[in-house]
Amino acid sequence: METKNILIENAVIVADRIKKGSLLIENDKIVEINDKIVANNVDDVINAEKKVLIPGLVNTHTHLSMSLMRGLADDLPLDTWLNDHIWPVEANLNGEHCYAGALLACAEMIKSGTTCFNDMYFFMDSVAKAADEAGIRGMLSHGMIDLGDEDKRKAEFKETKRIIEKCHDTADGRIKVSFGPHSPYTCSEELLEGVRKEADKYGLKIHIHASETQKEVEDVLEAHRKRPFEYLDEIGLLGEDVLAAHAVWLSDNEMEIIKERGVKLSHNPSSNMKLASGISPVSKLLEKGICVSLGTDGAASNNSLDLFEEMKTAALLQKVHTLDPTVLNAHEVFEMATINGAAALGLENGIGTIEVGKKADIVLVDMKTPSLTPFRNPVSHLVYSANGADVDTVICNGEMLMKNRELQTIDEASVISLAEEASQDLLSKS
Amino acid sequence: METKNILIENAVIVADRIKKGSLLIENDKIVEINDKIVANNVDDVINAEKKVLIPGLVNTHTHLSMSLMRGLADDLPLDTWLNDHIWPVEANLNGEHCYAGALLACAEMIKSGTTCFNDMYFFMDSVAKAADEAGIRGMLSHGMIDLGDEDKRKAEFKETKRIIEKCHDTADGRIKVSFGPHSPYTCSEELLEGVRKEADKYGLKIHIHASETQKEVEDVLEAHRKRPFEYLDEIGLLGEDVLAAHAVWLSDNEMEIIKERGVKLSHNPSSNMKLASGISPVSKLLEKGICVSLGTDGAASNNSLDLFEEMKTAALLQKVHTLDPTVLNAHEVFEMATINGAAALGLENGIGTIEVGKKADIVLVDMKTPSLTPFRNPVSHLVYSANGADVDTVICNGEMLMKNRELQTIDEASVISLAEEASQDLLSKS
Repeated sequence: METKNILIENAVIVADRIKKGSLLIENDKIVEINDKIVANNVDDVINAEKKVLIPGLVNTHTHLSMSLMRGLADDLPLDTWLNDHIWPVEANLNGEHCYAGALLACAEMIKSGTTCFNDMYFFMDSVAKAADEAGIRGMLSHGMIDLGDEDKRKAEFKETKRIIEKCHDTADGRIKVSFGPHSPYTCSEELLEGVRKEADKYGLKIHIHASETQKEVEDVLEAHRKRPFEYLDEIGLLGEDVLAAHAVWLSDNEMEIIKERGVKLSHNPSSNMKLASGISPVSKLLEKGICVSLGTDGAASNNSLDLFEEMKTAALLQKVHTLDPTVLNAHEVFEMATINGAAALGLENGIGTIEVGKKADIVLVDMKTPSLTPFRNPVSHLVYSANGADVDTVICNGEMLMKNRELQTIDEASVISLAEEASQDLLSKS
Repeated sequence: METKNILIENAVIVADRIKKGSLLIENDKIVEINDKIVANNVDDVINAEKKVLIPGLVNTHTHLSMSLMRGLADDLPLDTWLNDHIWPVEANLNGEHCYAGALLACAEMIKSGTTCFNDMYFFMDSVAKAADEAGIRGMLSHGMIDLGDEDKRKAEFKETKRIIEKCHDTADGRIKVSFGPHSPYTCSEELLEGVRKEADKYGLKIHIHASETQKEVEDVLEAHRKRPFEYLDEIGLLGEDVLAAHAVWLSDNEMEIIKERGVKLSHNPSSNMKLASGISPVSKLLEKGICVSLGTDGAASNNSLDLFEEMKTAALLQKVHTLDPTVLNAHEVFEMATINGAAALGLENGIGTIEVGKKADIVLVDMKTPSLTPFRNPVSHLVYSANGADVDTVICNGEMLMKNRELQTIDEASVISLAEEASQDLLSKS
């Protein structure tokens, strides 16, 4: 890891209070926040005049390698999209494709201010390699699907363990691995019970899709006479270490279960809108004290990984859904994309806020642009007016990943070329 | 007007068909589109390799000068927002404020690929001045409100006529003026009838807000025993020359009236979501053959003028609203932001598509960026993955307004400074 001591001056720092000042990074950590900082042996001094300093955003539900399938198929019913477009392509995926797609996604995330992601997909050691090279932080899970087949189930546990042993806690601790049972309708009860047992044994988290569509709820009801979260609770899967993506169609009882078990959620408004899945009752969930974070889902169903746009969409969607403009205010949705995301991954003591002692995962947003003028109320501007292109500088784990919109750890043109080639190769086989 | 002959080569041209080729501009018009063009006396040759060439976007409902109030008040109920924040500030507006705010908005629109807007506000000669300097195309209306007061009504007609005489068909024809009765609940029947009479006399369009909130529908029902569009029809206001913004709460009968009278609509999804107004039944309206265009509303209730983001929001919102992912596909929403916008303003023969003989209102979008990779399906990428920051070059009426993201007609830093000063001055008085 190449790190340096970095001094950032004259920034509007969005911490507990919003205040203009300086921030000092030593190696991978924030060591001082003050009006003025006098520091020796600083390798890099950044004048952040008219820039806002925020924690790196945390994207808690992604399928990075699916960026290769961006724009491949839109405006289709979910089953046509999956059966006729996504699955036939995925059948031909290999590790090189996944590496190229993940590297492309890392470039896009860094360029839009995301420093940490939570990914579920295949060939996850290739995703780990991309994330390591890009310098970004991530939690990875192999997506486990058995559809009741015992051989498939064994193979999924084998692959998950391979990924744990090869990738967990690598890249200076930036990369962690979790268990990724795909969903209550694609995994057997045996698989889900096995995941709970193994996750306890390894002390690792669980990442699952749950209650994304009405059809899923109907199918789970038919198969198990319970709604998805009721069923997952009954078989003992739920706990504080579980992050469930989507959570769109929830009964009151399911919300109570989520709260009691301490399950964390990832809200994916753009994907839920684009696939016409439905609207998660986020403001109710937050009111109950449930940890709701923010995710983009894969670029094949969004079709962007820009968490700034996702913040705006989350706030606006909840307001119109409840016909109440006061719900999910800018501050709350900013927390969803930062500290709630960190907490959803169990990283709340390390990242998610700007505090002395935390990891230096830091983003500078340039406010000197017509679309962010007049310069007032930074959190409102970040949520309602900014997009990823306003991000100027990105630091993760103390390392400079982007400076003045120039990627530092990976070469943008090469990443694009590699992704174009991988995408062509993948489609030519499908 | 400074125009030149401009040759654009190697662009992916989004016209009737999507095809790679060249386009030649002579003075203010598109004169040739072909695989290769050999031209003499060309002042500027643009190599648009890996860029997509589209018509300049058309924003059919704006309050440009309100950009000064961006982020001033968010997450509030509509009445608090208006009574406690917007109206007290507006009470102190003067022409210099409106000029500064409109110039800021023009800079933001050009930087995000919009070349034509439809504005309703105050001090509209100041808005015209800003638009003229920026080189953008616009239709302007003085927002008329009488609340039943006869003196106020007379003053509103006087001001409207002043603006018509001073500004209509100025700036090489780029600037037109229309009548702007604010809404059925802020204008008396006398004002609305007067507008119809005068609009016929002058041959000018009418721009009005209608059916934005449930409360408006209730209020109009109570006052006139009819819903907003029924009432407007009854008093004879509606016609092919009327553009109504919002149109959120519509009965089946109102949709029929809109269709029969040929009224054009401006859909403003972000503003309707942020103020929790509701969701317009856009896919139904389009199915009926009604002309629905796209608008951002003012930056105080959006808080952005980026029509790329608005396209995505429109598509996604309609899909989740109807729980049907096939409605409002990328192609349809792209038409809403281009040719439907042109048609809504009666400019469909002049702008809104890339065709020989039409005005050269042209935008180049740079696709060589991670968030638009792989390079496929341009219309999907434009709607679902791009945002205004991907716009590279903007031409309006044959004049270069932005090249390689550098504004050409106005100085970005000066525009920002002027807007900051105007905003501070305005707030200091409020």
